[in-house]
Parts: sequence; C-alpha cells; structure tokens
Amino acid sequence: MKFGVNYTPSQGWFYMWLHPDWDTVHRDMDHIASLGVDHVRIFPLWPILQPNRTAINTSGLKDLHRMVGVAGKAGLDCYVDVLQGHMSSFDFLPSWMLSWHKKNMFTDPAAVQAQAELVAAVYDDLHDLSCFAGLTLGNECNQFAGSSHPSPMRASNEDIEAWLRELLKPVTKRAHQDGRVVLHCENDEVWYSDGHPFLPEYAANIGDITAIHSWVFNGTAQHYGDLSQESVRHAEYLVQLAQAFANYADRKVWVQEIGAPLNVIAPEHAAQFCRESIEHILDSNNVYGLTWWCSHNVDQRYADFPTLEHELGLFDVDGKLTPIGYSFKEVVRQYQNPCKVEARPQALVIDTDSEGLPILRASLSPGGSVFDRWMELSAAGERPSLVLSKDLADHRLLEERGIGSHHSVEPKAGKLYSSVSDSSVL
Amino acid sequence: MKFGVNYTPSQGWFYMWLHPDWDTVHRDMDHIASLGVDHVRIFPLWPILQPNRTAINTSGLKDLHRMVGVAGKAGLDCYVDVLQGHMSSFDFLPSWMLSWHKKNMFTDPAAVQAQAELVAAVYDDLHDLSCFAGLTLGNECNQFAGSSHPSPMRASNEDIEAWLRELLKPVTKRAHQDGRVVLHCENDEVWYSDGHPFLPEYAANIGDITAIHSWVFNGTAQHYGDLSQESVRHAEYLVQLAQAFANYADRKVWVQEIGAPLNVIAPEHAAQFCRESIEHILDSNNVYGLTWWCSHNVDQRYADFPTLEHELGLFDVDGKLTPIGYSFKEVVRQYQNPCKVEARPQALVIDTDSEGLPILRASLSPGGSVFDRWMELSAAGERPSLVLSKDLADHRLLEERGIGSHHSVEPKAGKLYSSVSDSSVL
Repeated sequence: MKFGVNYTPSQGWFYMWLHPDWDTVHRDMDHIASLGVDHVRIFPLWPILQPNRTAINTSGLKDLHRMVGVAGKAGLDCYVDVLQGHMSSFDFLPSWMLSWHKKNMFTDPAAVQAQAELVAAVYDDLHDLSCFAGLTLGNECNQFAGSSHPSPMRASNEDIEAWLRELLKPVTKRAHQDGRVVLHCENDEVWYSDGHPFLPEYAANIGDITAIHSWVFNGTAQHYGDLSQESVRHAEYLVQLAQAFANYADRKVWVQEIGAPLNVIAPEHAAQFCRESIEHILDSNNVYGLTWWCSHNVDQRYADFPTLEHELGLFDVDGKLTPIGYSFKEVVRQYQNPCKVEARPQALVIDTDSEGLPILRASLSPGGSVFDRWMELSAAGERPSLVLSKDLADHRLLEERGIGSHHSVEPKAGKLYSSVSDSSVL
Repeated sequence: MKFGVNYTPSQGWFYMWLHPDWDTVHRDMDHIASLGVDHVRIFPLWPILQPNRTAINTSGLKDLHRMVGVAGKAGLDCYVDVLQGHMSSFDFLPSWMLSWHKKNMFTDPAAVQAQAELVAAVYDDLHDLSCFAGLTLGNECNQFAGSSHPSPMRASNEDIEAWLRELLKPVTKRAHQDGRVVLHCENDEVWYSDGHPFLPEYAANIGDITAIHSWVFNGTAQHYGDLSQESVRHAEYLVQLAQAFANYADRKVWVQEIGAPLNVIAPEHAAQFCRESIEHILDSNNVYGLTWWCSHNVDQRYADFPTLEHELGLFDVDGKLTPIGYSFKEVVRQYQNPCKVEARPQALVIDTDSEGLPILRASLSPGGSVFDRWMELSAAGERPSLVLSKDLADHRLLEERGIGSHHSVEPKAGKLYSSVSDSSVL
C-alpha cells in the first residue's frame, strides 16, 4: 500500500512549467517527503510539451526530467500524467487543437497519433530515472468527452476504447519490462453518468491498474452531510465499484485522487473526513495506493479557480502544514503497513448487459438505489461488495473474490450527482 | 517612410517563446538588419505572458525585454503586438478564456481589464529601451469577432469601440510623452465585411496610426490574376480606403502586413509582385511605413499550417535570402527616401450613413463596384482617391486632402472576398 500526494507547486501553480523555479520545487518535494509518503503524482502541461502536432518540446521534456529527478532526490517515487489537458476547472489545449484547427482528441487520427507519440516521448524521457514509477495518460481526459463539458468532443464508446489502447500501446511492453505501471484515469462520470463514452469496463480492465478519483462535491457531501457515512465511505465505495467491474479478482485499484473540498466540508471537519475516508479505504484488499489531492494550496493571487481549489493543500503556499496536512501525516504514519483484510462475502448486484455495461449508471450514483443500499448496509457494519449481474454465473470469479451471497436492488436513478466541482463559480 | 519586417523566428516559430534560443534570435535580427530595414514587428504569445487572468508572467516579460533589446542591438526599432491571440491560422488563448471559463475577450469586464493590464505591463516592461518604438494591441484580434471564425466571440460595434479605447487608454498618454505610437490592427474584414463589429471608422481614427494588412489571398489574386492591377494595387487601395475613413487629412497609414502568398501567386512572379506592390504604395502620401510579412519561412517540420505560411519568408529557415527576399532588399535600397507625391484630386465616393459606416462594405471588397471602379481608373493612370459621402460637405477636409472632384458609383456587392487564407487546409 503506497501513500502519496498529488503535487501542486506552491509557487506559480502549474503555470510554473513556463519557467520552473527549481529552488521552490526542491523545497516543495522536501516538504512532501516529510509527510512520510512514498510518492508524488506530477502534471506537465500539454501545450508546453507539444506546442505543434508534430513537434515535441525537448526543453519541456528536460524540465520534466529534472522535476522527476528532484522528487527522486527527496526520496519520492514519481508518477507522471501526460496529457493536461484538464486541471482544477482549467482546460489546457494546444493551439493545434483549437478553433480553426478544432480537432477531436479522441477521434481525429492525426491528433491521436500525436498524443501516442507524446506518451512515448515522455516515457523515453524519464526511463533512465529509477524513481519514475508509472505513467498515466492524462488527468481526467474523459472530461473533454463528458456531456457537462461546455464544448464536448463527441466520441462513441468504441472510439474511447480505441483511444485508450492506442495511447497505452507504445509504452505498455517497455513499462512492464521496466517494472513500471501504465494506466489511464477518469473522474467519476465513468461510474455515474449514463451515456458517458468512457465505460466502467474500460476503467476496470484497460491499463495496469484501475484509477479512481473520489470527490464528494459531486452531490454526496451536500446531500448527506460532510461526515456522513456516504461522504467518508465514498472512496471505499468507488474501490468496491472498480473491483466489481474488473474481469480478474486481483485487479488493483489506485485511489489516485481524494481530497477534502471545503465548499462542502466544514473546515473543522476536514481532518476527521481525511482520517475516516482513509480508514474505510483500508478495509478493502487490492488497493494499490492512495494519493491525496493535493500538496499545496493554490495561491489566492490566481483568479477564476473554484474557491475550494485554494484550500485543498496539505501545505499552504508558504509550506506550512494545514489542519488536513496534520491529519493526513498522522494517518500515513499509523497505517504505513496495513494488514490484509477479510473478504466481503455479501455482494449487491449491479444490473448490467452481457458486456458489463450497467443498465443504469445513475443507480450507482449518489442517491441511486445501488449507492444508497450499499451505504445502508455499510453503515450497519455489513461490509458489502458489489458484483455484476453478468458475472453471477462465473463461479470461479465469485470464489476468488470471496463472494458467497448476493442480492439484487431494483435500479433507480439518483438525482444528486453533478461532476462539476462548484457550479456557482463556473 | 519606414521599412521593416514582421519577425517570425527561424527556429521554433513563435513556440520559441517557451524557451528562447538567443543565439538564433541574434542571428535572425542580424539577417533582418542586413536587408537595410529600420524596424521589426514582434509577437509574444498571450498564454505565456498572462497564464492566469490576474497574473502576468514576469519571466515572460523578461524574455520580451531581451528580444526587443536584441533587435535594438542589431540597429532595429521594435514594434510589439501584445495579444496573440491569432497567428497564421492558430489561435493562442489562455486557459482562463477557454471552455469552462469561456470568456468573451471583448465584452467580459474582467477579461477586458486583464487585457488592459497586460498592455500596460508590456509598455512598462519595455519603456526603458530606446529602440522600443510602438505598441499594437494585438495581431488581428478582430478575427475572434468575425463571423467566419469557427467560434466567434459576439460583440456589438459599441462593444468593440469600448474595447479599443479601454485597452489603449493605459498607455496612450505615456507613449505620446515618450514619442512612441500606440495602435490597433485588423485584417481586411474591417473594410470588406458587412456586419463586422470592427468598423472602418475605428480603424481609421482610434489609436495613433491606421494599420492595414494587405493579403491578396482574399479572392483578389485568385480572380484577377497574381500580377493583375488588382493584386499589385491591393495595398495601395487599402491605403486610400484608410485615408478616406480618417477624420483628418494627415492621418498616417501603416502597411503593417503585406506578403506574397504562394498559394495564389506563382513563385516566379513573387519578386515582381513585391516590387510593384511597394511602388504603388509609395504613390500615396502619409504612409507611415511598410512592414513585410515575414522574416523567415516556417519550418516544414511543423504541421497544420496552411501551406503558404511555410513560404512567406524573406529568408529560409537557414537564413538564406529567398527570391522575394532579394527583391524586397533591392526595393528597400532604392526607395529609402521616397519623395512626397502629388495629391489625388479625383475621388470616388463611398456611400456611408451619417456616422461614416458604409452602406455596403461588400461594394469595397474584391469584385465590388467601388473596388472595381477604383482599379479601372487606376489602371487607366487616373490615381483616384476615395471619399465618404458624409464628408462631401466638409470643404476643409476635401481641400486638405486635395480632392477637387468626385463621382459616385452605385454600391454593388463583390462576391469574391474571403478572409480565410487557405480554406482547403482549414
């Protein structure tokens, strides 16, 4: 079980990539290492790394190499997301994707090829660094295909599957030889939004690990309360969802993002939210790691961020530990070596078609019948798991997962879910 | 009369701003100076200078300062465009303008304020450099409001007037004290496109000089021929148009962009096109200067440019003079000190409303009745000028402009005009 932090530079946010201040990066990484964590996840910006479709910025790659090296020097493994893409409500798109050159990143063959080349180039750039531990295609690229996006890039399910495989292909074999992981990640639209072309099946089976991003600003904290079972078990629930959609019982799940958004969590409850969320996550097996969002607060000098983004840090902009930071550090110390836990023999059934696509993803979302029933059983101490209806005849899988009994829930849609972090600001 | 060059870096195009290679910039500026010109026009990129709405990148300003200094060292004055914005078919928009943060650059008060702050910051940054000669708000920002844009930012005429004045305001007084010019510039939609919210009146009266950008890929060269009178007099015609819309007879016009696009001009005709175009421009008084587009070819390694953009340079990417370069250099040498020319006593009338807005801008465009009649008279050696119907009673203005007679043309729309450089590519 790995513990880590999503790195948001204390000075300059991700704009820092324009002119990296290495003293700041060194200091930030040392602060992060002082939490007792073993890794960081870092985010270069797409328009800087690939300003033209056929030109990768070698100086940008050098900066990336240097940053990963600084993390390593601080004793941290480093996971790198390639395509940002999307960060904290901002979309960073290179000019060759925009307006006159409007390209669909998922379906335009030339754009897909360019992205695959960038993925390969980033891997090549970093391959000599032993602290380079893994590569994620990009942060929540699925947001560009989501129906809530102001100008969505339309893609079919098949387009998305092809895009994922095309981008992972150039690096998967090498990464496995090198003992590294390669994966993709999405926000919770993949689990909760019917019609979303990124499918749970892809999340849970393509790439080496399933990444989940758990954000209770999605309606959960607002409706149920910031310290409700629903809120503090939201990440645990996503872990169970991810495991249900995996074709193999030993598929690992990475809680790649979880944070305490203070627009929906009372500041005085944030520390408790952090502790309880992590303790619940540790009640599942096959959790690869947990990476808190985020290292440093976003400086108030920067405009147009949803307010909550300024207050997610384990450190403030001066490098001072925040209350959430204290709590996280303590929990990490306490659970450095978590024990294997018991299986979860009682499963709730998710109705799917024969391909494993849920009949109603909204039933899995906050306020949906599966979500609510799972939370009810959890609150009663039942430790429910989840299983797909299409897998009920797969006795070997059920056995490997330790599932002994299952019962159905009539799929009813939840009406609470929103993927947007703070709709009052955007 | 100033002669100059629009500077397109030989290596890295404008992506170069991400990591300037100063040796290359030095070499490029020396090459440009060897043409015998007195100035360059340079273009930083907006997302680099202002990555967040409330944060101007001081390191980016340092790079800009250094580049202007390098130009000065090569003996060149330097004019700087602030908001790029738009370059050679690519739009460079900061993330705080895009998608979730979709802002209308012309009408969103916070966005307008941010732009005005950037204009002021660029001026402040450069004010100590004696070679810093003037500031243009940005390159053809009007394209963002044009109806041909794939996602136009809608704005009324009044919005645009307010935007121009708001952005010029913070620097105008200082610039005049310092002996510098401040201005704005548009592509030819301002003169030719009915409904376009950037009006001829604004172009010809707001700011210190009227900038014109003359590009015969707008239908002129295609229809009339690459060495037709219409093509080689297109810039001269725009100078006359600009003077017609000015409220004062001594308003200066800057031919800020003119180039020989090889998608519509046969390569073997480019040198002649260059010479004849410039000679015709010199047949007008009150021309502030002429700035050729562009210094260096765009490297073929970069994708998605309209083909013509790779071949506009006076130098190739290795710094070798191109055929157009030879011609331009020769013409500059020959016309270093052009004489004052005779007035143009015969004027064609442009029908306008009482505010000076043409009844039919399409009649001024290629194939329009005013355009065609002016070209016919010019070809016959008549040296026609242009005058607004609303000014016909302004005897003092007519006298100052030396206009003795005028005659009308029935306004009929041209059907040749397109503002897009190469619609087969975009």
